[in-house]
Amino acid sequence: MVSVAIMGHGVVGSGVAEILLTHKQKLFASVGEEIYIKHVLDLREFPDSPIADRFTKNFEDIVNDIDVRVVVEVMGGVNPAYDFVKRCLLCGKSVVTSNKELVAAHGAELLQIAKDNNTNFLFEASVGGGIPIIRPMNQCLVANNVSEVAGILNGTTNFILTKMINEGMEFDTALKLAQDLGYAERNPEADVEGHDACRKICILASLAYSKHIYPDAVHTEGITKITLDDVKYASIWGGVIKLIGKVKKLENNMIDIVVAPMFVPYTSQLSSIEDVFNGIMVRGDCTGDVVFYGKGAGKLPTASAVVADVVDCVKHLKNRKYLFWADSDNSSVIDYKESVTAMYIRAKADDRDAAYNKAKEIFKDIHILENKDAAQGEIAFVCEPMKYSDILNNIDTLNADGVKVESAIRIGDL
Amino acid sequence: MVSVAIMGHGVVGSGVAEILLTHKQKLFASVGEEIYIKHVLDLREFPDSPIADRFTKNFEDIVNDIDVRVVVEVMGGVNPAYDFVKRCLLCGKSVVTSNKELVAAHGAELLQIAKDNNTNFLFEASVGGGIPIIRPMNQCLVANNVSEVAGILNGTTNFILTKMINEGMEFDTALKLAQDLGYAERNPEADVEGHDACRKICILASLAYSKHIYPDAVHTEGITKITLDDVKYASIWGGVIKLIGKVKKLENNMIDIVVAPMFVPYTSQLSSIEDVFNGIMVRGDCTGDVVFYGKGAGKLPTASAVVADVVDCVKHLKNRKYLFWADSDNSSVIDYKESVTAMYIRAKADDRDAAYNKAKEIFKDIHILENKDAAQGEIAFVCEPMKYSDILNNIDTLNADGVKVESAIRIGDL
Repeated sequence: MVSVAIMGHGVVGSGVAEILLTHKQKLFASVGEEIYIKHVLDLREFPDSPIADRFTKNFEDIVNDIDVRVVVEVMGGVNPAYDFVKRCLLCGKSVVTSNKELVAAHGAELLQIAKDNNTNFLFEASVGGGIPIIRPMNQCLVANNVSEVAGILNGTTNFILTKMINEGMEFDTALKLAQDLGYAERNPEADVEGHDACRKICILASLAYSKHIYPDAVHTEGITKITLDDVKYASIWGGVIKLIGKVKKLENNMIDIVVAPMFVPYTSQLSSIEDVFNGIMVRGDCTGDVVFYGKGAGKLPTASAVVADVVDCVKHLKNRKYLFWADSDNSSVIDYKESVTAMYIRAKADDRDAAYNKAKEIFKDIHILENKDAAQGEIAFVCEPMKYSDILNNIDTLNADGVKVESAIRIGDL
Repeated sequence: MVSVAIMGHGVVGSGVAEILLTHKQKLFASVGEEIYIKHVLDLREFPDSPIADRFTKNFEDIVNDIDVRVVVEVMGGVNPAYDFVKRCLLCGKSVVTSNKELVAAHGAELLQIAKDNNTNFLFEASVGGGIPIIRPMNQCLVANNVSEVAGILNGTTNFILTKMINEGMEFDTALKLAQDLGYAERNPEADVEGHDACRKICILASLAYSKHIYPDAVHTEGITKITLDDVKYASIWGGVIKLIGKVKKLENNMIDIVVAPMFVPYTSQLSSIEDVFNGIMVRGDCTGDVVFYGKGAGKLPTASAVVADVVDCVKHLKNRKYLFWADSDNSSVIDYKESVTAMYIRAKADDRDAAYNKAKEIFKDIHILENKDAAQGEIAFVCEPMKYSDILNNIDTLNADGVKVESAIRIGDL
């Protein structure tokens, strides 16, 4: 019998307890011994829980219990999760977490502590909820040099964009619906401004390139400025708008990483990922593109990924798994303005023909997006790939010339 | 340093050697020591290989070399691969294979021998080429009861069907093109008759339900009878025709498994998997649907999956991985005629209205597929889910009544 403790009895935590209890037999068959929940840490009372007698409000009960070999952290937030996880690892307990904020902020340090203490720190559930992605990237794709990882990493924004694309719903209405359905928080900033997706692409980037990429190094744009006009132009171009987290290794070994809405062509597997689903594309030099798809959040999907990590820890109590990346100072990340991308641009002017001529003069090669329903004086085009700083300069020139740019969205090379 | 041997220097074998040589550093970083190719077994000569001096024509050189800890079997076919693999496992060497025929025919026995000898038998590359699927199913989804696995498991047939669907190419022309491009063998039977897909769904089913399902227990239909008319009706219905390998656990714990062309709705992720790509959907009670997508064959994708297994073996030389399923007598597989499915049926008759009335009389609820380009006297409809044996009886009745059924294709509940 192996004793585990669960810190946090919210949505994911209660799911972890539920799966450990209801799937006991299947897990026993896989592990070869029983996984026993010895403690659950939560400040609230759960008198109706089948394991009500095992609840504690005191973290010391867990960290000081030498029986406890694996600790599940599903409290969320950085504090006090960070301190608790660190203390558990320092005394040799394995830790499993679904906490992307914690991993994105302190992953390298916690992995180092785990290594120093010959124990495991696993976090499959921190990206993609129930979709297996951390382990496949770490194990199955070990024989690949990963050139790029790109994904739809946030279900809430994907739900909103899907409603805009398929039902012509305005952003605000779609957000309200997402909130009513419980997909979005009352304060939706972390989702709609891209911060959640940013943490996840940081984790995948750190794993792919074996050094920690911190969120503050990543240029992050949300979807609040996307309009139905942009959605329409994306379809004319041949695709859909998705919030994409993307990291790429350049030829000089520098890392190009961004979170932003992008035009995704219909030919990409990512274009057909709808509603709250997530999808992650990993581009390896041997495998080519591999895509992982599924529910990126939710109680049981996320909890099942946590439990899979618990099982892995139990199987590797004596020898560490080789999941590891080193700390870094973000110096391998290029300035986002140096990043090269093609761009969709929508603008307004008094004279459309003159405006297109200006655009051609400034951007050289442009691909005009013909829209028979275009508003008076509206132009829209896609420019060839160029440095983002050049695009910004060109937009300034356009604006100065009376062609007012209303929208600029990256073309995802996916 | 860990010494490995590679049996077979064909497409996949040479890819394995190439990756082990070119990705040496990355692999070293992951494993913590060098993976050294000590022997390559092949009856042919490869004087230009960078490891030409390590070739042997004698299997005994490998099995008798106590230095060799991991043996890669990429010869293909059951003989002599089966004997070689067995002997390697019996003397405690780990074995990695990409050989789906071997695993489908002898997986349970070889897993048992591996277990008895405290060593590993891994075969990630046997299904889905470079797509991680065996390991995610075995590890990440361990906390799920898998209710269903369904996949596009054969790239050749998917290429042919894609050409039929997107370019209106006839089956024979598309097959010829696939052969010219090297995707199909000169004798294409194993692909187009579904045998290859059958072996793969057997491996996935065995893994999902922990008992060996042998190919001879699986009703298998190929795609040779699919016509462009059927493709057209699928689009009218709202989907595409794909060759699907599918296994499902029924409420009475019996297993329903089949390989057949199916109508796949556009709403399914599997519908958008085109050309030689593969896609596999795993339906778990906690995760919901998870889909894995990528190149299902090819030298480097397949070889990279083999190398990932080699790495895993090297990391687990002293302790087995828990990949295992028991032998079985196929008694848990239901007769395919007992399987319940909805069905698309296309038929010819003298009088269309009379024919539809007959169909309604016999099948009760039918959904008529309206086709303005239908040939004279042609009818097409989809019936409600019912036992396959009932469908066969109903088709007999239709035929006897002068409504000649030309095509019957399952509706994939995907």
